[in-house]
Amino acid sequence: MRATILVEPGRLILGEKPVPDVGPLDALLRITTTTICGTDIHILKGEYPVAPGLTIGHEPVGVIHKLGSAVTGYHEGQRVVAGAITPAGWDNASLSGCGSQCGAGTVHGWKPLGGWRFGNTIDGAQADYVLVPDAMANLAPVPDGLTDEQVLMCPDILSTGLGGAEAARIRPGDTVAVFAQGPIGLCATAGARLIGASLVIGVESNPDRMAVARRMGADDVIDFSRVDPVSEILRLTNGRGVDAAIEALGTQATFEAALRVLRPGGTLSSLGVYAEDLRLPISAFFAGLGDHTIRTTLCPGGKERMRRLMAVIEGGRINTAALVTHRFGLNEIEKAYQLFESQQDGVIKVAIRP
Amino acid sequence: MRATILVEPGRLILGEKPVPDVGPLDALLRITTTTICGTDIHILKGEYPVAPGLTIGHEPVGVIHKLGSAVTGYHEGQRVVAGAITPAGWDNASLSGCGSQCGAGTVHGWKPLGGWRFGNTIDGAQADYVLVPDAMANLAPVPDGLTDEQVLMCPDILSTGLGGAEAARIRPGDTVAVFAQGPIGLCATAGARLIGASLVIGVESNPDRMAVARRMGADDVIDFSRVDPVSEILRLTNGRGVDAAIEALGTQATFEAALRVLRPGGTLSSLGVYAEDLRLPISAFFAGLGDHTIRTTLCPGGKERMRRLMAVIEGGRINTAALVTHRFGLNEIEKAYQLFESQQDGVIKVAIRP
Amino acid sequence: MRATILVEPGRLILGEKPVPDVGPLDALLRITTTTICGTDIHILKGEYPVAPGLTIGHEPVGVIHKLGSAVTGYHEGQRVVAGAITPAGWDNASLSGCGSQCGAGTVHGWKPLGGWRFGNTIDGAQADYVLVPDAMANLAPVPDGLTDEQVLMCPDILSTGLGGAEAARIRPGDTVAVFAQGPIGLCATAGARLIGASLVIGVESNPDRMAVARRMGADDVIDFSRVDPVSEILRLTNGRGVDAAIEALGTQATFEAALRVLRPGGTLSSLGVYAEDLRLPISAFFAGLGDHTIRTTLCPGGKERMRRLMAVIEGGRINTAALVTHRFGLNEIEKAYQLFESQQDGVIKVAIRP
Amino acid sequence: MRATILVEPGRLILGEKPVPDVGPLDALLRITTTTICGTDIHILKGEYPVAPGLTIGHEPVGVIHKLGSAVTGYHEGQRVVAGAITPAGWDNASLSGCGSQCGAGTVHGWKPLGGWRFGNTIDGAQADYVLVPDAMANLAPVPDGLTDEQVLMCPDILSTGLGGAEAARIRPGDTVAVFAQGPIGLCATAGARLIGASLVIGVESNPDRMAVARRMGADDVIDFSRVDPVSEILRLTNGRGVDAAIEALGTQATFEAALRVLRPGGTLSSLGVYAEDLRLPISAFFAGLGDHTIRTTLCPGGKERMRRLMAVIEGGRINTAALVTHRFGLNEIEKAYQLFESQQDGVIKVAIRP
Repeated sequence: MRATILVEPGRLILGEKPVPDVGPLDALLRITTTTICGTDIHILKGEYPVAPGLTIGHEPVGVIHKLGSAVTGYHEGQRVVAGAITPAGWDNASLSGCGSQCGAGTVHGWKPLGGWRFGNTIDGAQADYVLVPDAMANLAPVPDGLTDEQVLMCPDILSTGLGGAEAARIRPGDTVAVFAQGPIGLCATAGARLIGASLVIGVESNPDRMAVARRMGADDVIDFSRVDPVSEILRLTNGRGVDAAIEALGTQATFEAALRVLRPGGTLSSLGVYAEDLRLPISAFFAGLGDHTIRTTLCPGGKERMRRLMAVIEGGRINTAALVTHRFGLNEIEKAYQLFESQQDGVIKVAIRP
Repeated sequence: MRATILVEPGRLILGEKPVPDVGPLDALLRITTTTICGTDIHILKGEYPVAPGLTIGHEPVGVIHKLGSAVTGYHEGQRVVAGAITPAGWDNASLSGCGSQCGAGTVHGWKPLGGWRFGNTIDGAQADYVLVPDAMANLAPVPDGLTDEQVLMCPDILSTGLGGAEAARIRPGDTVAVFAQGPIGLCATAGARLIGASLVIGVESNPDRMAVARRMGADDVIDFSRVDPVSEILRLTNGRGVDAAIEALGTQATFEAALRVLRPGGTLSSLGVYAEDLRLPISAFFAGLGDHTIRTTLCPGGKERMRRLMAVIEGGRINTAALVTHRFGLNEIEKAYQLFESQQDGVIKVAIRP
Repeated sequence: MRATILVEPGRLILGEKPVPDVGPLDALLRITTTTICGTDIHILKGEYPVAPGLTIGHEPVGVIHKLGSAVTGYHEGQRVVAGAITPAGWDNASLSGCGSQCGAGTVHGWKPLGGWRFGNTIDGAQADYVLVPDAMANLAPVPDGLTDEQVLMCPDILSTGLGGAEAARIRPGDTVAVFAQGPIGLCATAGARLIGASLVIGVESNPDRMAVARRMGADDVIDFSRVDPVSEILRLTNGRGVDAAIEALGTQATFEAALRVLRPGGTLSSLGVYAEDLRLPISAFFAGLGDHTIRTTLCPGGKERMRRLMAVIEGGRINTAALVTHRFGLNEIEKAYQLFESQQDGVIKVAIRP
Repeated sequence: MRATILVEPGRLILGEKPVPDVGPLDALLRITTTTICGTDIHILKGEYPVAPGLTIGHEPVGVIHKLGSAVTGYHEGQRVVAGAITPAGWDNASLSGCGSQCGAGTVHGWKPLGGWRFGNTIDGAQADYVLVPDAMANLAPVPDGLTDEQVLMCPDILSTGLGGAEAARIRPGDTVAVFAQGPIGLCATAGARLIGASLVIGVESNPDRMAVARRMGADDVIDFSRVDPVSEILRLTNGRGVDAAIEALGTQATFEAALRVLRPGGTLSSLGVYAEDLRLPISAFFAGLGDHTIRTTLCPGGKERMRRLMAVIEGGRINTAALVTHRFGLNEIEKAYQLFESQQDGVIKVAIRP
């Protein structure tokens, strides 16, 4: 089968691998649609290291091709989606409600990022087939009324973005700022609005993304290349600050700005992947006396999460299909990476169809 | 192997059954210690119906005898405990953090009481061996320093009692009343104290149990056969009422009294198994305008829950071994039932050792 | 000044009263717009008893006419709204976050329904002027961009309805049923949608209200006069049941139906004012083992609550002005009561303008 | 009256000031017992700036000497305690449940540290008399059975320490590490145990404080001057890490160590007052993908908080009187400061009795 293989940092190829064997708890999916994530770009650049030879990609929509001998409740040919994070369900972290840090197979049942397996510790989804571990915890049937592209953001982008809004514990009447309007930030914007924020302020400089941010639910979008977002947000909130700030880029600048616009007692919900140590400026942190909460969220996974997200889409609450701006065959994967990385031509997300 | 079989309502026997086959996700335990629950008495009396011929009992401590072909992370000979409730881990209810209502195998992933399988829908633990389904989600290794009797209350009594205190959302400084001081109520008393209640008031009439209630953490114990518990609790709280009331019997009288002693905005945490419709008196319910919360809890299960409970015991926070008042061999099971049902001779819980 | 006075059960008049004196913590409002609540009808009928001679009404929008000597931070002429419930802020219940049960002046700081004072224990708002107690905790300035009618639902209807949705702890992807689509139920419907429910099912039989329910956010509205709502809701959810059910009428039938459509582990959020004891059928209550939560909510009040609700309206998230179907002068108050009570002519809420 | 006055950074004197006038919402307390806080030492050293001429101290136990004209529900001669933080109750932050950031008098109702007034923005408690603002929200009657010294830690030390444990959302079975065992850390240790931690590990090097930590509830105390606390905590938890870490000193070293011992998904509860920017090392922060929560807590205040804390003490759950190691008259205040600052002679907390 064809697979998008990381040969070494800086080089991906579409290569050939054998179709994997199916263990008793696994399922083999034939991929019908997948996509590229910002994290894949980090991997490609070597900023996030994975083993050379690995198939990358962690956002699978497909059809069950083969089920493991111990898997029940599914049938071959069934159309399903699986999350980017594949908690085992039976491990201690999952049973604690924190399956993203699933430590299946570890002594203590917890492992940092342990739930992230596709394209990280096992072969991923940018291929003709992908093997889904702990299939019963991870395969979510796709409702008939939804297309592949409608559910394509569920595995990662929507789960993470909405998760960031949920982690911010937004309440009706709250004001929320979302720093960066890439795919994750756009879903955080949509998520903040979905759960009741009354004023959602996006921060971005790419004009295409600023426009999409408004369509996804932002009431205001600040162009940080023209105005200082901190002073502009304080102005828009009459000096009060925001109840919650969501960081969706992974830099010191956005993290720090998110802290500076927060009212005392507010929550900074961090979604970014940071490449360097972060600094908490004492002036923004009120010497540790501001009753602040800072929470980080790794994309929640598992079939129940996928079911919920598809219900959000089926109910017409969020339209993530609008984020798919370009489509490619698997044979065009390198071209797809080039476009996605360049952020040219208004690209938000690409659909890859084997 | 020997097994305690419900022949028909009113009649239990110690009979013979074949040692069960082990499916890929199962584990076969050799029971070293088990016990009898109040629910088993309901089953015996026909008040809670189960299929004739079923092996009853749902509180297993034992040694792994055989592992299913897909089970990893355990080894034969390992000493483990499993909860009374055995969530699958991979079903939607478990993945929602509500494995007690696990709907493994159902279309929608939820089933009322679906996580309670032992001695309810599958053969139980009052036998030489018990088959544990979804073993990887349910087998919790017992720390070396703890005896069987020290962990014997974890599968049901402690998990339920402490769960009732947790469901009451007790905060430091709260006053809590616990109605009935049978095994569950005693653990609710200990649990309320464990998580920070500043005044714990038990209600009971059996003098032995009143004495044990004090040892488990009650500050006061009211003998309801001598004084009206509602007026006495209001007196003890200077008319304020309690922040939380825990019902641990399953009758209209205790449920209603729990509601009547609750301050506005308080929580009634219900643990009892009710045999009849309940009535919410409008005077106690403030016409529905009292900002009340009523929560029911079915014993939380799964290996992570068992791990937590054993940590509570290992830390010396609660001593449930003190509740074991009598010991029997499996051959004496009928005698054990007679004693337990009679509540004679100061019996709280019995240990059954095959 | 003119005031709507309960002479005796069954008889209201527009009478004359002196303009009240202003205590140090009070503020005197000149009412510009107020409305009639279903609770006022209960009072008129004698179903909820208040002292004869009381001015009724608890939904004031107005202008500050005079401030108490100890009140700071406001100025005369300022346009404000006050909640139906007026917590003191400084009492123990308010400081516990439960100001609806405010026990200002009591020994223990809690009093059932103690925060409801207007038209209940002190003169209310259907008058030329109303005296607001604990003014600093209760007066919320109205943003310039909002009309009286836009904020008229904040004091009670929106606060209660949205409060019912919040009490149901709705999460994205949840399915919610709302029983009865009167003003409170309509706001519960809008509230459930606001905070992220993916499928909101209303239950009603009045065709006008069914239509309004759809406009307020219901995805489906079931006419209970034509189909059994329990079986219809189970059908719509493929047998799964709803994650949360909101009761917004105050009858055994709706309460019981709400319980029967709830999935195990779900929440019944009750908003109704019940006139009789309630029954919890054991079959719907799963013998107390269903991990159910039942919560009742008395309209949250205080100026911060009002600020939040006005932010919801200012952000265009909920349009409660659409619920105002008829307008009357204070002189027409009896006519307004007749129409409102009759539920004729498509009336949802009336605006009363002194 | 006598008052402990900050003349300039580095110099405190016991001077004379007029007894303050009592505004309508105020109460004048005659101090019977007060104490010195670590924060006072920061103020003395100029590390935390306050206005020269201010009376410092924020931990008052006393007797009501005079009540403001609008204050009801209290009587002169009544023995009371007031928190270090004095929320107004009626401001937006208090009404949001975050009175520590009370913005009484501000436009937006929030102000960083705004609830901390005594010895910060208004005259404090190390004097013969102190004026308590918003008295009705802040005066908590002391139960007859409790001495001044028994409640002396309620205003700050116990409220902060226990608050840090509560902010850590500790659950039964959790393991908690508390970095530094000064007065706040000792109360955090006691608080973690109070609310159900099963293993509490203190970190300290002062032998006196190590011994007190054990008496307050620590199961283990690590001497960081002999072993590396991070590796020792990982050893004690078999490599799993702690569920919650409480920082109670205010340095980069303790903050960073707290982060490094945390399991994925765990909570860092920070109580320290930081003088410099903090650094979040990317390795400890798992690149922002560890599902971490970091929360800071400023001492919760208000009379309901004080009532709760006194209930904890009255119930015998925590004995903070044991922390009072030395006693001084107000005339000896400078000597008391010298001892307290030096941490000599086993001093934990001093009682000052005017």
